[in-house]
Amino acid sequence: MKRIAIDMDEVMADFSSKHLSQFNAKFQDSLTLEDLQGTRLRHLRPHLADEITAIIDEVNFFRDLNVVEGCQEVIRELSSNYEIYIATAAMEHPSSLQGKYEWLCEHFSFISPMNYVFCGDKSIINADYLIDDNVRNFKGFRGQGLLFTAPHNRDETGYVRVNSWAEVLEYFRSQSH
Amino acid sequence: MKRIAIDMDEVMADFSSKHLSQFNAKFQDSLTLEDLQGTRLRHLRPHLADEITAIIDEVNFFRDLNVVEGCQEVIRELSSNYEIYIATAAMEHPSSLQGKYEWLCEHFSFISPMNYVFCGDKSIINADYLIDDNVRNFKGFRGQGLLFTAPHNRDETGYVRVNSWAEVLEYFRSQSH
Repeated sequence: MKRIAIDMDEVMADFSSKHLSQFNAKFQDSLTLEDLQGTRLRHLRPHLADEITAIIDEVNFFRDLNVVEGCQEVIRELSSNYEIYIATAAMEHPSSLQGKYEWLCEHFSFISPMNYVFCGDKSIINADYLIDDNVRNFKGFRGQGLLFTAPHNRDETGYVRVNSWAEVLEYFRSQSH
Repeated sequence: MKRIAIDMDEVMADFSSKHLSQFNAKFQDSLTLEDLQGTRLRHLRPHLADEITAIIDEVNFFRDLNVVEGCQEVIRELSSNYEIYIATAAMEHPSSLQGKYEWLCEHFSFISPMNYVFCGDKSIINADYLIDDNVRNFKGFRGQGLLFTAPHNRDETGYVRVNSWAEVLEYFRSQSH
């Protein structure tokens, strides 16, 4: 059985919406997801870079993120034909460890915690596919990377891109033919 | 540069001594490390299996474990010639996540947190070598496993065994010839 590793933030969990709304509330700003196209919050407001990181470092930031549309249904379907591993870069924000664990247990109870991987550098992941929004995570990855569209990666080219979970499903259906 | 993945408990961190002493204190028992040769605490006292697990699940159990003799010096030396990753099975005891992170930062500050991997099933690890005390973790591992001697694995055969960090160093020195 082939193995798919799946990133959490921006792929399974809607990171940007919460981050942006908390930032706007804290700094009386009015940035939108549209403003984040092709860039990142810390690049739009570089003088607030530390504060932007501090929002993420708050314990429980990750605990109540919304699930990305279609994610549960598609992963459940894929899990019939593939081994599913969750591979999230948690080590830059260690306060996220517990919250990410609990979030996965709550929303993806059909995936065993034995298949969670909290890591930093994802070249350590041994899988056939990696679905991720950060192109840096494909560097050194042995398998096939699938770039999941997020505002910040809009302008990245040279990768197999999936714009939604519906497109992920379509991709893997085409693989089985 | 080749990559070595290293397990924490019983390899880097002296898990058994603390577990045993806390168990003895809690249940007025007097088991020794000698009693654990070739077995595990939960097999010696099966009627207390739940309590034995509960000791490990206490927050901070892992935070103050002693460092195994020679571990820091040898890993530091190996890190000149190998990429070092720490691969620990943390998902069966999620309360350990934060403590393990802090323990690594304290005792192995020369290893980047980007090289920590908190996982369950270690077949997800992409490395050339895995130093581990649990033979189950070699199943599905692509590289060379090195079985680090711990009381419970004394009777395991059919693996490359290292009895100490001095022997680990010796093994890798012999590899470079």
